Amino acid sequence: MGILKDNGVVYEPINEVDLGPNSDQLYLHSDVKAPRMAGFLAKVFVWFLEMKIIGKILLYFLKKNNRIQKLVSYAVLEESPLYVPLHPYEEFEEQEEEIECLNRGLSASEQVQHAVDCLQSSDSSILEDSNFSFRRWTILDYSKAYASRQITPLMVAERLISAVMQSSGPEMDMSFFISYDTHDILRQATESTLRYQRGEAISVLDGVPIAVKDEIDCMPYPTTGGSKWLHKVRPCKEDACCVMRLRACGAILVGKTNMHELGAGTSGINPHYGTSRNPYDPKRISGGSSSGSAAVVCAGLCPVALGVDGGGSVRMPAALCGVIGLKPSFGRIPHTGVLPLNWTVGMVGILAGTVEDSLIVYAAISGPAESHKPKIPRLNLPKLNLSNMSSIKMAKSNEWFNDCSDDIRACCSRALANLHKLYGWETIEVTLPDIEVMRLAHYVTIGSECTASIAHHLEKMGKSESGWDVRVALSIYGSFNSRDYLNAQRIRNRQMKFHEKIFSMADVIVSPMVGVTAYEIKDDVRDTGELDYVNGAALVRYSIAGNFLGLPAVTVPVGYDRLGLPIGIQFIGKPWSEAKLIQIAYAMEALCKTEYKKPHVFYDILAPS
Amino acid sequence: MGILKDNGVVYEPINEVDLGPNSDQLYLHSDVKAPRMAGFLAKVFVWFLEMKIIGKILLYFLKKNNRIQKLVSYAVLEESPLYVPLHPYEEFEEQEEEIECLNRGLSASEQVQHAVDCLQSSDSSILEDSNFSFRRWTILDYSKAYASRQITPLMVAERLISAVMQSSGPEMDMSFFISYDTHDILRQATESTLRYQRGEAISVLDGVPIAVKDEIDCMPYPTTGGSKWLHKVRPCKEDACCVMRLRACGAILVGKTNMHELGAGTSGINPHYGTSRNPYDPKRISGGSSSGSAAVVCAGLCPVALGVDGGGSVRMPAALCGVIGLKPSFGRIPHTGVLPLNWTVGMVGILAGTVEDSLIVYAAISGPAESHKPKIPRLNLPKLNLSNMSSIKMAKSNEWFNDCSDDIRACCSRALANLHKLYGWETIEVTLPDIEVMRLAHYVTIGSECTASIAHHLEKMGKSESGWDVRVALSIYGSFNSRDYLNAQRIRNRQMKFHEKIFSMADVIVSPMVGVTAYEIKDDVRDTGELDYVNGAALVRYSIAGNFLGLPAVTVPVGYDRLGLPIGIQFIGKPWSEAKLIQIAYAMEALCKTEYKKPHVFYDILAPS
Repeated sequence: MGILKDNGVVYEPINEVDLGPNSDQLYLHSDVKAPRMAGFLAKVFVWFLEMKIIGKILLYFLKKNNRIQKLVSYAVLEESPLYVPLHPYEEFEEQEEEIECLNRGLSASEQVQHAVDCLQSSDSSILEDSNFSFRRWTILDYSKAYASRQITPLMVAERLISAVMQSSGPEMDMSFFISYDTHDILRQATESTLRYQRGEAISVLDGVPIAVKDEIDCMPYPTTGGSKWLHKVRPCKEDACCVMRLRACGAILVGKTNMHELGAGTSGINPHYGTSRNPYDPKRISGGSSSGSAAVVCAGLCPVALGVDGGGSVRMPAALCGVIGLKPSFGRIPHTGVLPLNWTVGMVGILAGTVEDSLIVYAAISGPAESHKPKIPRLNLPKLNLSNMSSIKMAKSNEWFNDCSDDIRACCSRALANLHKLYGWETIEVTLPDIEVMRLAHYVTIGSECTASIAHHLEKMGKSESGWDVRVALSIYGSFNSRDYLNAQRIRNRQMKFHEKIFSMADVIVSPMVGVTAYEIKDDVRDTGELDYVNGAALVRYSIAGNFLGLPAVTVPVGYDRLGLPIGIQFIGKPWSEAKLIQIAYAMEALCKTEYKKPHVFYDILAPS
Repeated sequence: MGILKDNGVVYEPINEVDLGPNSDQLYLHSDVKAPRMAGFLAKVFVWFLEMKIIGKILLYFLKKNNRIQKLVSYAVLEESPLYVPLHPYEEFEEQEEEIECLNRGLSASEQVQHAVDCLQSSDSSILEDSNFSFRRWTILDYSKAYASRQITPLMVAERLISAVMQSSGPEMDMSFFISYDTHDILRQATESTLRYQRGEAISVLDGVPIAVKDEIDCMPYPTTGGSKWLHKVRPCKEDACCVMRLRACGAILVGKTNMHELGAGTSGINPHYGTSRNPYDPKRISGGSSSGSAAVVCAGLCPVALGVDGGGSVRMPAALCGVIGLKPSFGRIPHTGVLPLNWTVGMVGILAGTVEDSLIVYAAISGPAESHKPKIPRLNLPKLNLSNMSSIKMAKSNEWFNDCSDDIRACCSRALANLHKLYGWETIEVTLPDIEVMRLAHYVTIGSECTASIAHHLEKMGKSESGWDVRVALSIYGSFNSRDYLNAQRIRNRQMKFHEKIFSMADVIVSPMVGVTAYEIKDDVRDTGELDYVNGAALVRYSIAGNFLGLPAVTVPVGYDRLGLPIGIQFIGKPWSEAKLIQIAYAMEALCKTEYKKPHVFYDILAPS
C-alpha cells in the first residue's frame, strides 16, 4: 500500500507493486469507527453534527478515525487525476464468433430484436425440461403468452395492480413502490393489448411490465429520489432516455420503486416511504439503494426493473434479493433524465430475473443519446449458447475474496469450482491492492459530487425535510475540500492502472457481491433511518471498481446462506466487455438455476389463471 | 449573468443568453477588494493568514469580498462539470490550400523541415528590403549564418555567455536566468559547430540558442519552479519531452529562465532569484510567470524560449516585453517533464521574436508523446504567405475589449482597423458573458490543483521556504472545498458552450492581451514579493479562455504606449486551429513590424563581429 509518513501514506510507484498472489501488499480490512445509531441517538448525533463549530470538529475526527485523511487527503502519489472513467477503445471489426456487433443508429426495438436473435441459440429448450424447483417468468414467457392469446397485457396489468395493492397494504407493508398510477398502467396495458390484437406488437418487450427506480424520470410520476423534497424543486418534465427507449419497445412502465433516500445509503431503509422489504424474508432489508427495483423483480411483479448504480446500488440489492444485477460500462447507457446526484460514478443498471432478460433490456436501452454522443464503441451482444463457450480466465484476489461471511465465501468458492469442473475455466490468483483506499476515494468522490449537485436545493429547502441518516451523510459529504477530491481522482487513476494490469492477465475479476446477506430491519429505524457503517462497508466491499473505474459488472445468484437468504457472485469485466460478461453470467446461472428457491413473498403474475 | 438569489447567482439556461452586441448581459468589472501589500505589511498579513482560526476567518472574508462565493461556490447552474479541456475533433482529410497536414509519427526534425517548407512561401524577402527600424535575428538568420560559416555556434555561445554574465551583474541586475552552466552551453555549441563543419546540421534549429522556463525539466539543471525548495524534493532526472525534441533538432539549451515563484503570480517579482526586468525599461516588470523567457527573447539573447502558460503565463509577459507568445490547444504539446503544478489548465507555450520562429518551434515540439497518446488531431502547419490569406472574421466583445488602459485600447483598435483596411477582415461584435466569473472559476481550479499537487511537499518543507506573496496564494489555494472546485468545472462547461457558439459566428476572438502595460517594480518588493491583485486582475483579464477552455491563443506586438512600453493584441482560436491562428498572427505582425522599437537592453548576438 505504501509507507505512512507524517500525515499521509506515500504510495509506491505502480511498477514496484507486486500484483501476484504472494504480494507483500497489505490487505486493509474496513475498520469503520462509527457505532450503529438509530432513533433518538441518531437525532442527537445529527444535532451536534449540524452545529457550526462542534459539527466541524466532529467531522474532523470522523474523517480522521476512518482513515480518509491518512489514505486520501494527505496521500502522496505520482498519478495525475483521472476525473471521468470513460474508457478509450478501438473499434473491433473482426468479431468473435459468439458475439454479434451491431451497427450504430439502430432503434431500441431493432436492438431488442438482435438480442432475441442471440437467444435463439440459447439452451432454454433443454433447460425447460429440467426439474426446476422455482423459476421466474421471463420476457419471452410474457411475449409468447401474449402472442398465443393465453393472456393479455391488460390482464397482467390488473393482476399486477392487485398484487402491488396487496403487498403495500398494512399487513404486508412491503413498501416496494414510491408511486404507481393504476390509471396510467391500465392505459398502457390497453394500448399494448390492442397492438397484440392487431398483430402489431412492437417487440418482445411489448406489454411487459417494467418498474423504474425513483431516481429516473418516468412520466407521469415525480422523481423523488426517495426524498420528500427533491421533486418539488426539480419537476420531472419528460421520460429519461432509457425509459423513452423502453416505451418505444412497448414496455409497460408500472411505477417508481422505493430507494434509499438520495441513494445515500445501502440498506434501503427509508423513513419517508417505508423500508422496501426482502421477499425472501420480509423482516430483512432488500438492500440499496435500488431496493424496490430488486424486490419487485424478486417478488415476481416484473421480470425486469431499472436501477441506478453509483456505489453498487443495483448489484448489492440484486445480490441480497437473489436476482441478476447488471451495471454496464460507464457511458454505455445515456444518463439523460437521471437525477444528477453525481456525475462520474453513477449509471443506470438492470435488475432482472434471468440473464436472458438482462440482455434484452440491455439491448433496448444501450447506445449514445441523440443529444450528446460520448465516444463509445458499437454495441456487442453475446450469442447465449453453453455448448459454444470460450475458455475464461478469472482473477481472484484471495484476501479480498474471503473478506465476507463464511456462508458467502463457501458458496462463491463452490461456484468457482463448478465453473472449473463444467467449463474448465481457470481461476488465477492475484493481489488487487488498496481496495479499501479505493472505497474511501470513491466515498469522497460521490459525496463531493452530490454536494455540488444538490447543496443549493438543500439550502433552499432546509435540511429538515431530509431523513436523519441522510443528514449525517450530507454533513460528511459537504466536508470534503478540493484537495480531498483531487487526491481521490489520483487514486482513481492509480486503481485504473492496477486493474488494467490485472486485465492483461485475466478476462474478468471474480468476487462475492456483498460481504453479508440481508440483515434484519430493527424496530428503531422507522422514523430516523439507521446509521450502520459497519454493515454498510461490508455491503459495498466488492462494488467500488464498477463505479469508480466505470467497469462493467454483473452479479448472479449462486446459492443461499443457512438462513435461506440469497448469495450473489460478481464478475467485473474489462471496459466495454458487457457481451462477454453476460455470457459468463449466463454460464454461471445455468449451473445454479435449477436450485433457485422461491421467495417467501412471490406473485405468479403470468401463471395460467 | 443570472439572478442573485440567497447566497449565489442563479445562471440562466445557455439558450436564453443573448450573445449579440446589444445583449443585456452585465459586464462585470474586476472588483478586487485587496490592497497592494509588500514589505512588512505583507509579512504581517501572512502571519495572520497562517493562523489556524483567524486565518480561516480572514480567508472566508477574502473569498466572500472577492465574489468567489457568490459567483462560484454557491452558483446554481444546469451544466455538469467539464474537468479537462481536451477537445474532440474530426480528422480533416481534405485540406485548405494554405495549410499543410502532416502525417503522424514524424520526428521533431522532420516536422521542423515541414515548417521551414511552409516559410518558403513567406514574404521575408520582400520585407527584408523594407526599412526596419529594428528587427530581431530569426532562427533562419542563425541557420543561414552558420551554414555560410560567417559565424559558428561556438562563437554565438561565447557571446551569449558574456551577455548573460553582463546582464546578471550587479550593475544591470536583469535576473533573466535562475541557472545556466557555461560548460554545458559550450559543450553543446562545440558539438553543433562540428556538425556544421561536417555538413551534418540536423535542422534549422541546429546551434540555435533556446532558453527554458525553470518549470520545465532540462538537464543538467534542477527545476526550481522559481522556488528555493521544490528541486530538493523533486529532483530533475531527465529532459522534459519538449526539451528532448528541441535537443533532437540540434538546439542549444542555454539555461533556465527566471519565473514567478511556483507560477503563482503575474508580475515575475521573485524574492529568491531577483525580479526579471523588462528590457524596454529595466525599472519595470517583464510580467509573469514566464518572465525570464519573455525577457531573454526581448533582449535578443535567444530567438525563442519556452514558457508554461497556466493562466496567461506565456502570453502576458510576451505582451509586456513586445514579443510573440503562442499557447497551443490543451494537449497539443506533451506535458511530460513539466512541474505538475496543475493538471488541467497549464501547458507549454512558445515565446519568440517573430511569428515564423514560433511556427518552427511549434512544429518541433508538438504531437503526442510516445509514452501516452491522448487523442489529438494530426499536426497542421500554415503556409505563411500574405498574398494568399483567406478572409477572417474576428469576434469582439466590446465592453471586455475596452476594459484596459486608453493607450492599449487605441492601439488594439487601430490594429483591427488596419487588418480591415489591408486584408478586408471583418470584426463582428458579440457579447462574451461572464468573463469575470470564468476568471474566478479558473482561479479556484488552478489553486485547488496546485494544492493537491504540492501540499505534501509544503507540509514537509514548511512554508517558511516560500516567498511571502506565494504564502498568501497558497493559503487561499488551500481554502477551496470540493464544491467550489466542482462548481468551477460546471462553469467551465458553460463557458465552453458560450465559446462554441461564438466560434460558430467567427474564426477567432480578438482582444488586447493585457489590461495594463509593464508597471514599475517598487522598492519594497525585494524581500517579500508583492501582493497586487488589482494589477494582477488587469494582467490576466484576457488570458483565461486559453487556459480554462484549452483554446489556442497567440499574442502579437502591435505598438507602444506613451511611455514606449510594448502593447500586444490577442487572437483566441477554435480548438486545434493553431495553423490558422499562426497565419493570422503573421498577417498582424506584417502590419506592425516595420515600426518595432529596439529595447533599452538588447544584445546583438548574431551581428557580424
